[in-house]
Amino acid sequence: MKKHNFYAGPSILPEYTIKKTAEAILDFAGTGLSVMEVSHRSKEFVAVMDEATALVKELLQVPETHEVLFLQGGASTQFFTVPFNLLKTKAAYLNTGTWSNKAIKEAKLFGEIVEVASSKDTTYNYIPKGYVVPEDVDYFHYTTNNTIYGTQIHHDPEVSVPLIADMSSDIFSRPIDVSKYDLIYAGAQKNLAPAGVTLVIVRKEALGKVDRPIPTMIDYRTHIEKGSMFNTPPCVPVFAALQTLRWLKENGGIEAIAKVNQEKAAIIYDELDRNKCFEPVVKDPADRSLMNITFVMTKAYKEKEAEFFELATSKNCVGIKGHRSIGGFRASTYNAMPKESIQVLVDAMKEFEQKQA
Amino acid sequence: MKKHNFYAGPSILPEYTIKKTAEAILDFAGTGLSVMEVSHRSKEFVAVMDEATALVKELLQVPETHEVLFLQGGASTQFFTVPFNLLKTKAAYLNTGTWSNKAIKEAKLFGEIVEVASSKDTTYNYIPKGYVVPEDVDYFHYTTNNTIYGTQIHHDPEVSVPLIADMSSDIFSRPIDVSKYDLIYAGAQKNLAPAGVTLVIVRKEALGKVDRPIPTMIDYRTHIEKGSMFNTPPCVPVFAALQTLRWLKENGGIEAIAKVNQEKAAIIYDELDRNKCFEPVVKDPADRSLMNITFVMTKAYKEKEAEFFELATSKNCVGIKGHRSIGGFRASTYNAMPKESIQVLVDAMKEFEQKQA
Repeated sequence: MKKHNFYAGPSILPEYTIKKTAEAILDFAGTGLSVMEVSHRSKEFVAVMDEATALVKELLQVPETHEVLFLQGGASTQFFTVPFNLLKTKAAYLNTGTWSNKAIKEAKLFGEIVEVASSKDTTYNYIPKGYVVPEDVDYFHYTTNNTIYGTQIHHDPEVSVPLIADMSSDIFSRPIDVSKYDLIYAGAQKNLAPAGVTLVIVRKEALGKVDRPIPTMIDYRTHIEKGSMFNTPPCVPVFAALQTLRWLKENGGIEAIAKVNQEKAAIIYDELDRNKCFEPVVKDPADRSLMNITFVMTKAYKEKEAEFFELATSKNCVGIKGHRSIGGFRASTYNAMPKESIQVLVDAMKEFEQKQA
Repeated sequence: MKKHNFYAGPSILPEYTIKKTAEAILDFAGTGLSVMEVSHRSKEFVAVMDEATALVKELLQVPETHEVLFLQGGASTQFFTVPFNLLKTKAAYLNTGTWSNKAIKEAKLFGEIVEVASSKDTTYNYIPKGYVVPEDVDYFHYTTNNTIYGTQIHHDPEVSVPLIADMSSDIFSRPIDVSKYDLIYAGAQKNLAPAGVTLVIVRKEALGKVDRPIPTMIDYRTHIEKGSMFNTPPCVPVFAALQTLRWLKENGGIEAIAKVNQEKAAIIYDELDRNKCFEPVVKDPADRSLMNITFVMTKAYKEKEAEFFELATSKNCVGIKGHRSIGGFRASTYNAMPKESIQVLVDAMKEFEQKQA
């Protein structure tokens, strides 16, 4: 029985990635050895790292001014690594939820932090607008997609200071203009790879401007100089990332997947707007995430949450429980999620509504 | 054709680990989903982390005073994380090679470092003895096994200050007394798992004694409190680690594998001491590594290195080139290496010698 994987992360990956990784666990690149037990300095693994780096550059149209890195530690490690490398005295942060808050907390160890706006007043169910980013900050940091609350910022903000974004949960899902950013980071476990590798794209000339000494492993220049091979990289996650990047290119790249993602999200949001038993958590369509669709039962059906959960589970939908901080449900619809799975969930919503009649 | 995997790291893993991981990449714990795409908060993955932690405690007889953590970033990340958490003013380090040097370099950012001894004078081909560790240091740090040079410290040192060890390349290969250490760390990619996870064993009461603010992700207390699940762990490497731990337990645990490791290393060292074409890099048997056996051609055969390399390669030996800093050859003989592979290499040495006659 096919499972429909709505987990928020680690989350669904393309069947291609799963198949190729399983094969390489048994025999990697014809070496007769597992990808888990081959030196990262072998020509076979160096080729993996090189192609993965090149494909990120190609798919996201990364300009020559920027470098692509595969690191470890997740976005949580970037929360302190970014200010360690880039915060001189003052930085601005937009607070759109849990991940923004965590980034702000770490940055405060390194300088003054201006929180330009926050949607905390209504449990982060919208994206603040009309905020002003001070011109005297070292950078402006924001989170593009809020996995927990289901909001997303769909366009690169226009600011006059260096721009930094945590794109963990929507990178590769829509076009971005990398040239506008000094640094982009993303834990891989949504649209790229299994957990254990973190993508960083950084403008070279932004580095080397802080006075504090930086430990070698969290100095981005270390990894630029060594092509993400200063120390042993997480070889299996990087190998899997390469497969996903190949799959994405094969399927038309970012523009093509962005169109599919819009169509997929529309199927669920349209149903949420129509169905009398459910409502979306995020009211303003402009703020709705195309990756993590949060919804709750309408007032009349509040007591029937467990009943719908059971119905959806019986249809093989996995991972639809909402984050404990907002409850309800969450359908994560990353790049690899097929329309077929989305239709199964929407059909379950319709069936549930009919049962109530 | 079976390959004989002598890579220094990432390196040979048990066939059991490879088989079980390949299976879980396709279907993890009967979920119908890949271990790459299942939430780390799912009950199935929480069970993996719990069992892996428990097995480390059981196999290494970790006392109640200590916690076991699975982190990211490799030993290179521990080089600065250790002093960040534990160095108040002064620490002592033993310099036995490249990895010790890297640890010393990072520690110098946090306090005064006393290098108690060094074997740099002869390219680290022995373990310094008779050194004195000052009594006023916060800790004494050493590297148990030197992957590049082929030396190993086979017994826990007796010191009166807190003890810290980088055991990346020999953990789980021999008995250790964890109670003697404040902290042990090990990149997993030798005797445990594919690259991408780092084992840390830390004495709880050693923490919280430095004044500097510590970023959340590199504060060991964060990960103790959250059972290595503060952020998304590297699920596939942790899953593979669990399989290796199960395999190790099934095969008699540390005492049993230590005996096998001694026998395996003896087969090669005996041949190196006998064969007129080869000699071991490390002269003192007490200092010789049982994990990484470094050797070179004897004087009369110096020009024939490529010839032996070709012969060994024709016998399907992979990864025997010595590190560029000392040249020659290196046979890494980690826990998972079967005697059969070692015999193939030794037979190649004998065949090479006969050809010269």
